[in-house]
Amino acid sequence: MSIETKNIIVEKVKTSKIDQVDFDNLAFGSVFTDHMVVCTFKNGEWETPTIMPYQPITLDPSSKIFHYGQSIFEGMKAYKDKDNDIYLFRPLDNFKRLNISAERMCIPQIPEEYFMNSLTTLLQLDKEFIPTKEGSSLYIRPFMFASGNGFHASPANEYKFIIACAPSGAYFSGKVKVLIEEKYSRSANGGVGFAKTGGNYAGQFYPTQLAVAKGYNQVIWTDDSTHEFIEEAGAMNIFIRINDTLITGPTSDRILDGITRKSILEIAKDQGIKTEVRKITVKEVIEAAENGSLKEMFGAGTAAVISPISSFGFRETDYDLPEIENSFNQRLKKIITDIQYNKSEDKFGWRYKVKV
Amino acid sequence: MSIETKNIIVEKVKTSKIDQVDFDNLAFGSVFTDHMVVCTFKNGEWETPTIMPYQPITLDPSSKIFHYGQSIFEGMKAYKDKDNDIYLFRPLDNFKRLNISAERMCIPQIPEEYFMNSLTTLLQLDKEFIPTKEGSSLYIRPFMFASGNGFHASPANEYKFIIACAPSGAYFSGKVKVLIEEKYSRSANGGVGFAKTGGNYAGQFYPTQLAVAKGYNQVIWTDDSTHEFIEEAGAMNIFIRINDTLITGPTSDRILDGITRKSILEIAKDQGIKTEVRKITVKEVIEAAENGSLKEMFGAGTAAVISPISSFGFRETDYDLPEIENSFNQRLKKIITDIQYNKSEDKFGWRYKVKV
Ligand SMILES: Cc1ncc(COP(=O)(O)O)c(C=O)c1O
Ligand SMILES: Cc1ncc(COP(=O)(O)O)c(C=O)c1O
Repeated sequence: MSIETKNIIVEKVKTSKIDQVDFDNLAFGSVFTDHMVVCTFKNGEWETPTIMPYQPITLDPSSKIFHYGQSIFEGMKAYKDKDNDIYLFRPLDNFKRLNISAERMCIPQIPEEYFMNSLTTLLQLDKEFIPTKEGSSLYIRPFMFASGNGFHASPANEYKFIIACAPSGAYFSGKVKVLIEEKYSRSANGGVGFAKTGGNYAGQFYPTQLAVAKGYNQVIWTDDSTHEFIEEAGAMNIFIRINDTLITGPTSDRILDGITRKSILEIAKDQGIKTEVRKITVKEVIEAAENGSLKEMFGAGTAAVISPISSFGFRETDYDLPEIENSFNQRLKKIITDIQYNKSEDKFGWRYKVKV
Repeated sequence: MSIETKNIIVEKVKTSKIDQVDFDNLAFGSVFTDHMVVCTFKNGEWETPTIMPYQPITLDPSSKIFHYGQSIFEGMKAYKDKDNDIYLFRPLDNFKRLNISAERMCIPQIPEEYFMNSLTTLLQLDKEFIPTKEGSSLYIRPFMFASGNGFHASPANEYKFIIACAPSGAYFSGKVKVLIEEKYSRSANGGVGFAKTGGNYAGQFYPTQLAVAKGYNQVIWTDDSTHEFIEEAGAMNIFIRINDTLITGPTSDRILDGITRKSILEIAKDQGIKTEVRKITVKEVIEAAENGSLKEMFGAGTAAVISPISSFGFRETDYDLPEIENSFNQRLKKIITDIQYNKSEDKFGWRYKVKV
């Protein structure tokens, strides 16, 4: 049976699979909720979004997603507080960034109403899947891809917008060791690095595997022209603390404009921490490591939250970053997660309560 | 009923759809043959390839192809001569390049035997679909993508290798006008430009659409660091004739190592045409256009064959390239297509006869 609410068609599952979820041992993004949102773009317009049981997608072998990489996504989380109320964090920023990615990848933009209504309706239906354990949350994956057919290398005429959700634990298990990369690059000037598009991630796998083979978890990318400047990591923006100043690189067409990054910048300022948004050279980071002024490095992203970096490699040398007391990363992580889980006041107006 | 031959499982269609193909009005890559090859990588190995009726593919919404762009492809053609014998052109070079792309994109390499046996068996089955009309051929699309599941941004554990075929006409209809691009870029130093991976194509759509809106067909990419050097076009390498010298840029990690490109270089040398493989600046092309020494520009690729460029735009100016008598592009196109369609001797050993 399907019911139409707020311009959404809802087809519920007959039996929930929630009993199969081991909430005490959640990996990242590998078990899914009962339902998903599917919305099709066809004949020049988005059809009515449908919420349906989580199920396989069927595509022609000539669908452009298989050939020309026309795909974009977002990463969000839903959090539950002690009263079982549900919150999102700055969801309209994800919505806006999805459409920025869409424009660059020639994918039709999705209307705000379709995005927000279908997302919140999905969360109402699948709310039991939102973990309550500390450090866990419901990872939300809105994505769009070319479902139209044909081998001509040009934009498709049909697209799918889908939202799927996975109750998830931490993205990194344990300490994060990174390698500053000088040979491979993530993105080009005038390229698609600022868009959350599939190809940006596939391109990182090989250099990341080389780094993993040497004992690192992630690569820190540098600019592809000179490799002199620190850009970002695989799935997080990078912050560097030199003495008492917190520095992060400026965004550009090569770097994802992270929502965690900009939130951390605001929180830090509010906390009276001196911040700088400016180009950071590899050279100054090495020098700071050598003269003792490099105090902390951490990654910031929705999946990774705030992940302190315990050491970084450059050329043949590893530089350790011992844990320090009253670190910026612990302080900032507590403030941002307290806002996300509704454990503190929300002075920035970032929390978004989902009506249930 | 399925039969196993040469380590291939073959499931034939019950009724062919060949009657639905209008061989006199073939577009590029939009109608498909009766069968396709599907081979699955699972538990660390490639399973036996299966030839089955052309049919939809079913994937979990968390399949990594939708999220992280792990996909690669090749473009080949099958040609029929007047005796209805079937030929491929340097197919092992496509096979090798597919595996070069695979390595960069962290996709498992496919064994030569699987590639060649399943391809030739497919062509035997679908041989009636190979067009005989001048300028038409069977476009062959081998491709591989991540079919494994999960939202973690890391390589998948399952992949599909598929070959689908489309009887096709010309890729470009009419004259080709190109725009030399100075803002957007196709690929980064240390990136994936040399791999035939989906993301390289999706990233081109937006700048190409801007160029199309100004009346051009394709973009000619320049390097992303300085935009001073000519690289390649959307789906073809670029040749420039200045006076009587034929010039093309060197391949690099930003440029696809085209099979047509390297064949044209060999044919030209054999024809006594002076060739140069060296960096070409936009500046020298403009100067050559202005002083009259720029005689021809053309693109070279499997889909585009040899496509003469009738004019190019740079900044606000268009430069025309009037057709000339005894052009290199016409001469070289005749030689390469005569080899491909078995109309001439094959002194380079490039033709590959498919046993039927
Ligand atoms: C490449 C990249 N950089 C940075 C981030 C962090 O962005 P956000 O804080 O919006 O999640 C992400 C996504 O999580 C990413 O994929
Ligand atoms: C980006 C790009 N450059 C050049 C070419 C030409 O390569 P080939 O001659 O091997 O078809 C292609 C593919 O056709 C291509 O996609």
